[in-house]
Amino acid sequence: MDKFRELFEVLPEDIQAVMITSDVNRRYFTGMKSSDGTILAFRDKAYLIIDFRYIEKARKTVTTAEVIEQERLFEQINSLMKKHGANRVAIESQTMTVMGLSRIREFLDLYIDIDESDQLSVAINSLRVIKSDYEIDCIKRAQRIAEKSLRDILEIIEEGMTEREIALELNHRMFINGAEDLSFETIVLSGENTSMPHGVPSDRIVRRGDFILMDFGAVFNGYHSDMTRTVCVGEPSSEMREIYDIVLESQKLALDKARSGITGEELDSIARSFIEKHGYGQFFGHSLGHGVGLEIHEFPNVSQRNKNLLPVGSVVTIEPGIYLEGKFGVRIEDFVVLDENGCENMTNFPKELICL
Amino acid sequence: MDKFRELFEVLPEDIQAVMITSDVNRRYFTGMKSSDGTILAFRDKAYLIIDFRYIEKARKTVTTAEVIEQERLFEQINSLMKKHGANRVAIESQTMTVMGLSRIREFLDLYIDIDESDQLSVAINSLRVIKSDYEIDCIKRAQRIAEKSLRDILEIIEEGMTEREIALELNHRMFINGAEDLSFETIVLSGENTSMPHGVPSDRIVRRGDFILMDFGAVFNGYHSDMTRTVCVGEPSSEMREIYDIVLESQKLALDKARSGITGEELDSIARSFIEKHGYGQFFGHSLGHGVGLEIHEFPNVSQRNKNLLPVGSVVTIEPGIYLEGKFGVRIEDFVVLDENGCENMTNFPKELICL
Repeated sequence: MDKFRELFEVLPEDIQAVMITSDVNRRYFTGMKSSDGTILAFRDKAYLIIDFRYIEKARKTVTTAEVIEQERLFEQINSLMKKHGANRVAIESQTMTVMGLSRIREFLDLYIDIDESDQLSVAINSLRVIKSDYEIDCIKRAQRIAEKSLRDILEIIEEGMTEREIALELNHRMFINGAEDLSFETIVLSGENTSMPHGVPSDRIVRRGDFILMDFGAVFNGYHSDMTRTVCVGEPSSEMREIYDIVLESQKLALDKARSGITGEELDSIARSFIEKHGYGQFFGHSLGHGVGLEIHEFPNVSQRNKNLLPVGSVVTIEPGIYLEGKFGVRIEDFVVLDENGCENMTNFPKELICL
Repeated sequence: MDKFRELFEVLPEDIQAVMITSDVNRRYFTGMKSSDGTILAFRDKAYLIIDFRYIEKARKTVTTAEVIEQERLFEQINSLMKKHGANRVAIESQTMTVMGLSRIREFLDLYIDIDESDQLSVAINSLRVIKSDYEIDCIKRAQRIAEKSLRDILEIIEEGMTEREIALELNHRMFINGAEDLSFETIVLSGENTSMPHGVPSDRIVRRGDFILMDFGAVFNGYHSDMTRTVCVGEPSSEMREIYDIVLESQKLALDKARSGITGEELDSIARSFIEKHGYGQFFGHSLGHGVGLEIHEFPNVSQRNKNLLPVGSVVTIEPGIYLEGKFGVRIEDFVVLDENGCENMTNFPKELICL
């Protein structure tokens, strides 16, 4: 019941019940992956109502909530609301659809008041920001899978391969090495394509002297990893090396200062001002980082717009980049867990320029 | 403008404007994949408002709507509503979140009435059910990729491999053969695991005499394929062969009768009554099929609950199965496009039991 207790502690007292229906938050509170199911939690007890496909697994693995087989969902909810004397329930406004809410309005007993503000979603996000030891362990295991796969792939990358071929091989290695999924669609770009921060792997053939930029991650027990490395096939030009060194130095500065208790804006500024000082500020067009966990992009953001303090136990990426259109781009990304004194870098892979 | 004209033809006249924000429907109406963007369509003109990441591609490829770079989204929407003299806009209630709607309510000009019923979502679904020649072509190309990958994998399956290894290899082949994504998480089950209709690939090692059930699909240009084959490693028992033949025969009967103008229930009953006649009705626990297109599960359903006529141009799976708990299961799945006279089977792969 711990996570539910924490949740009710950050919710106003008039919220007597919460209904959690998003896949990701159902997994967060129960530890079990499913594509359907409803958590109904009260201040003193939580229930997971789930259908026959998942019932056996739920009964075996879920310890945070009483597991009930779904029959007539709304009748079951109405009856539990009555049993617990609750007349107000909050829903997840950030993920529930308009039609989902409309069905709830139709089938819930009339005396039940529905809180459709975003306070439940916001409260859950605030819990999820702070990672437990178990979560950090899953994230590290995901990252180990990604790193091993990068090592594997660096052995086979050579001139003549296409970006897409490299991406497919990298993905395949991640699965073979134990990933349950990819964190996101793997980015592998080469040559002038590396200047596109949001590029997708193409049939461009890798040539001697190209940068190859790889941004990828693995999922383990629902938890995501995220890393980027830019390597060179053969020898880089002096401009390529100069830009690489600026990005690397800016990242090291940010990693040195990364800790809880500073704002996302402050941390972003550390890398950004270094890049600006070298005259490339306009070519660093995205924020320094973002939170990572059960989703690949979650709170907190490490950006100029985040004026809030980064909390202890939050996991964020540190990923500065410089993108010179028509020429090349460099991004280097690690991810870290923050505490009062600094951070632990969960990425365990060299950052000095690798020339294949 | 054709698809938009069709859409407004099935919507009531008081709907002067529609806002389309779901990824899948934005892709349906523009042909372009993106993770963000807003279509605002009026009876005489449609706009795609999309951010800097996609603007170049949108300007090059989107011909059904005027492309506008997103700056201040709600100001842009308000101004277009005014320009077109529209005071009522429908949203997609089946995909828009409660928070999304709440933001729209907050930022749209006060005189604009928001239709939050499900009629826009329902209308779009009704268009998507009927596939164009282009869509059928994409679906067939997706299916060709899946079939080639199955041929590849049948060459290498042998005793001693795990279900997971086979699934990973099959997935890898689909990508190499040109899939942009998997239709869904590939199912590869073996031996007694084949009796679980919703099983996931495990580390179970394939042994001689096992059935291997593979349910998988590839995505091409956004369109999904879906097929299932059950093969045997070595020789099946006589019971395995008997069950296989019943499932195969039930599928052939359904394929023979599949056409537009009969109900989903009627088509389901053709396969189901044959299986029931042989005494296995209780072991066929799911419906006969479902629609396939931009999503792996869409309308129409081929099930006892669908009392509506199947329309010309709809694409459905035909996938009977018999699952004997603790022993084995068999499912055989093709998918077809329906017309008044029958159907075209888009699956081009043998169905007689393959013994490896």
